[in-house]
Amino acid sequence: MFPTLPEDFHVFDTTLRDGSQQEGIHLTPHDKLRLARLLDRFGVTHIEGGWPGANPADTAFFAEAARSLELRQSQLVAFGATRRVGLTAQDDPLTQALAEAGTEFCCIVAKSHVRHVLDALKTTLAENLAMVSQTVEHLRGLGKRVFVDCEHFFDGYLADPGYALAVIEAASGAGAEVAVLCDTNGGMVPRQIAQVVEQVLPHAPKLGIHCHNDTGCAVANTLSGVDAGVSHVQGTVNGYGERTGNADLTTVVANLQLKYGWDLVTPEALRDLTHLSQAVAEITGQHSFARQPYVGASSFAHKAGLHASAIKVDADLYQQIDPELVGNGMRMLISDMSGRANVQIKAEQLGHDLSDPELAGRVAEEVKRRAAAGYSYEAADASFDLLLRALTGQAPDHFQVATWRAETDQNESSQAVVRVSCGAEKARLCVGEGNGPVNALDQALRRGLTPHYPVVAEFELIDYRVRLLDDGHGTDAITRVLIDTEHAGRSWTTVGVGENIIEASWEALVDAIDYGLLVVEGKA
Amino acid sequence: MFPTLPEDFHVFDTTLRDGSQQEGIHLTPHDKLRLARLLDRFGVTHIEGGWPGANPADTAFFAEAARSLELRQSQLVAFGATRRVGLTAQDDPLTQALAEAGTEFCCIVAKSHVRHVLDALKTTLAENLAMVSQTVEHLRGLGKRVFVDCEHFFDGYLADPGYALAVIEAASGAGAEVAVLCDTNGGMVPRQIAQVVEQVLPHAPKLGIHCHNDTGCAVANTLSGVDAGVSHVQGTVNGYGERTGNADLTTVVANLQLKYGWDLVTPEALRDLTHLSQAVAEITGQHSFARQPYVGASSFAHKAGLHASAIKVDADLYQQIDPELVGNGMRMLISDMSGRANVQIKAEQLGHDLSDPELAGRVAEEVKRRAAAGYSYEAADASFDLLLRALTGQAPDHFQVATWRAETDQNESSQAVVRVSCGAEKARLCVGEGNGPVNALDQALRRGLTPHYPVVAEFELIDYRVRLLDDGHGTDAITRVLIDTEHAGRSWTTVGVGENIIEASWEALVDAIDYGLLVVEGKA
Repeated sequence: MFPTLPEDFHVFDTTLRDGSQQEGIHLTPHDKLRLARLLDRFGVTHIEGGWPGANPADTAFFAEAARSLELRQSQLVAFGATRRVGLTAQDDPLTQALAEAGTEFCCIVAKSHVRHVLDALKTTLAENLAMVSQTVEHLRGLGKRVFVDCEHFFDGYLADPGYALAVIEAASGAGAEVAVLCDTNGGMVPRQIAQVVEQVLPHAPKLGIHCHNDTGCAVANTLSGVDAGVSHVQGTVNGYGERTGNADLTTVVANLQLKYGWDLVTPEALRDLTHLSQAVAEITGQHSFARQPYVGASSFAHKAGLHASAIKVDADLYQQIDPELVGNGMRMLISDMSGRANVQIKAEQLGHDLSDPELAGRVAEEVKRRAAAGYSYEAADASFDLLLRALTGQAPDHFQVATWRAETDQNESSQAVVRVSCGAEKARLCVGEGNGPVNALDQALRRGLTPHYPVVAEFELIDYRVRLLDDGHGTDAITRVLIDTEHAGRSWTTVGVGENIIEASWEALVDAIDYGLLVVEGKA
Repeated sequence: MFPTLPEDFHVFDTTLRDGSQQEGIHLTPHDKLRLARLLDRFGVTHIEGGWPGANPADTAFFAEAARSLELRQSQLVAFGATRRVGLTAQDDPLTQALAEAGTEFCCIVAKSHVRHVLDALKTTLAENLAMVSQTVEHLRGLGKRVFVDCEHFFDGYLADPGYALAVIEAASGAGAEVAVLCDTNGGMVPRQIAQVVEQVLPHAPKLGIHCHNDTGCAVANTLSGVDAGVSHVQGTVNGYGERTGNADLTTVVANLQLKYGWDLVTPEALRDLTHLSQAVAEITGQHSFARQPYVGASSFAHKAGLHASAIKVDADLYQQIDPELVGNGMRMLISDMSGRANVQIKAEQLGHDLSDPELAGRVAEEVKRRAAAGYSYEAADASFDLLLRALTGQAPDHFQVATWRAETDQNESSQAVVRVSCGAEKARLCVGEGNGPVNALDQALRRGLTPHYPVVAEFELIDYRVRLLDDGHGTDAITRVLIDTEHAGRSWTTVGVGENIIEASWEALVDAIDYGLLVVEGKA
């Protein structure tokens, strides 16, 4: 059903170059060094690092890479362009910068669409062919190994196949090892890719493919190219890139390895795929996308009661792959659609015995009742755990809060007063100040608890999310607050709901501290 | 290069049913009515509304739909399952609920994978076939038109093609109009879809396809099915759905209409695609995904540089389609070069003259400074308009606030005091009470303003959104608040930023009232 792995197959990563074109991504040379080490450990064959000479940060990256970057599995590639109109390759400062970047591999972009040559480059079709062949020849003469990105290739081929093929032949004839067919505007669908690649295949020793996701088909277009005979795929981790992004290399590699059965990276490296995706998101400052294939937080999450009862029988029945193969894990969602089976599996994951069907039914009912009121336990495992304990008579008894109050005025700081007691002690009034009422309440509560539980001073609130549950009401709608708290490398999420945003926040805050104490005590 | 549009092609939307399986989506019957009206206006052929009888919200939706939902272009479909093991179709309460849902169309799910029949359903292969044919026959006997979702069809076909085909034939033989091949676990890649569909095609009068995105190929798998001969495609708006989601119907329709050249919806409806995507995101409470094909905020965004200069020559050179075809727009990302032009275009849209390049430059600088501080004017046109007026010496002078204060305690209501004056009058202290400090401040401010501006009592705050701008800080991070206000059918958005969520909310609130008064005065 699948083709066999071609010899010398390239997994070419361009996160550092094309990925950095994404809105909101700004990479420093130091970021790029960290990313390159991650990609090398994963095992891509090539890492395109940037465009030396075109911007100072990329020039600095290649200089630093030459000094300190040791790659074990990957080849570093410098990106550039064909020489400019009217210059010789050796006289073009950008070609010089490329030559001086210190890499064995170069990848240069060439125009392959007649309209782009005539209207954007404003030169003749013949001059563009000369630019391609002379630049490749020059770099080959310096001992470089050269790939050529044929920009707008598919649009160009559909407009004028003869000229597009002439560019391929100019590149190959001058010694380029790979002609990369680029769907630069991302407008192709798979059947077009297959048709064009099949026709181009006889005209170059080796073809590559570079896709963007403007039709939602970047991964499939890449596979379509592979099916038709390309043996070099370009992409970026998490699909970062201009507009809709590039082909997501994590998905492409997982598909080729797990569906096609090709050994592109080691099984250990593939088990690191989810971690790679998260680490790259962190370095590039991007939020993870929960629905990302294979590596997303929701990719192996199950909500429907129908599925959950079947999963109890056999997990393989409702999963495309074992999530551990890519370092991800199955997750049960607790929602108003959850039946008893979801609640039981979830409780078991949290270390509680809920095998009694009557008790499980009662918990499922309470979850549904709370879901109707606005609670969501899908992310808030810690609040779900506390709810389970409360419903089974095992609620923790760390502290009691009698009253609380928070105040904010035009002076931009908020104050809060909390009356709290731990165990049998008399309730004490504690005051806190902060950048907002919730922060002030947080400070006041911690001040009340630290004499008994010094560790709460170390709990860090790392995220705070607010959502209104019904539109049409504005500032007096029902509010759901989620709080993420972290301590000693472990994090947990709690939820609070109410008409009053401060009340809802306070509920999530109290759960966060309560659950954190259970974590520290080794009970959660 | 592309096949022609088959007769009676179905665009089957399942946002209300399978889309609501997504983590974080909870739809009320009212939400579903709003979504159904949007989908009908867009022009899908079928809207799957939910599973009557399986959960009370879905039963309530169908009852309400029968009373009040008038669809012009779409057919409402009730989802259900084959009768349960050992029951007759007429005695199964779920089949009864399906029959009573009041729709002409039903879509029932049937097992088509031997392991799911034997291990999950725990019945015989023969009984499952009887369940399929008897349920279809029963519903046909009641005058229903029936589609059958063949669950896990592709996995099932690869495991035992004979049995998978027997399920198709049982459904078709009993009168099902469409046999829908479901890649329930989402593990297929396009070449597998094509191969299986080609083999199944002769065995049913009409085939459909239902894909999930677990290999990142949901859209392409759908196209692959279409290429191989299916004439019914299922999907959800924005690709919502369990795990990685379903095929994104916005992308599927845009591809079929703009690439394949098929007239599935009117050109006017297609120009509403971006709005449809945003409206559905809002009703379902989901963040928009900037890189979403066709409709995402980044889908036609260009970083200045190589592309920007070419776009000046001819926008078509660097765009897969004209973004106006799908109601999206080209966006130049802010840079030293593009900043001024951006600001000038926006000012012009708001009716201000900013042709003076020196003034435009000053505004662009201020916008940049504020963007660095956390302000975003992408959505907050009203605050941008007020900023423009302030920078050009035309700030409105409706009222002044001297001091404000808000307080919340454990009793769940908040109080606020605002010292406000209008024109030359002496400042007055006004008190307000509400479900939260921002609501209380809102009440107090309005109480202070109504003697002079009675109309502010009619302003309705319809949405309030809070976003933290840097992670890793929790309740003391920088906060951005967006407030949507509505009056007499017109709505406007304002923004506030600050370390204190109440301070940021107050800023957005004051802008909201100030701008609303300009609207009422006919000045904005």
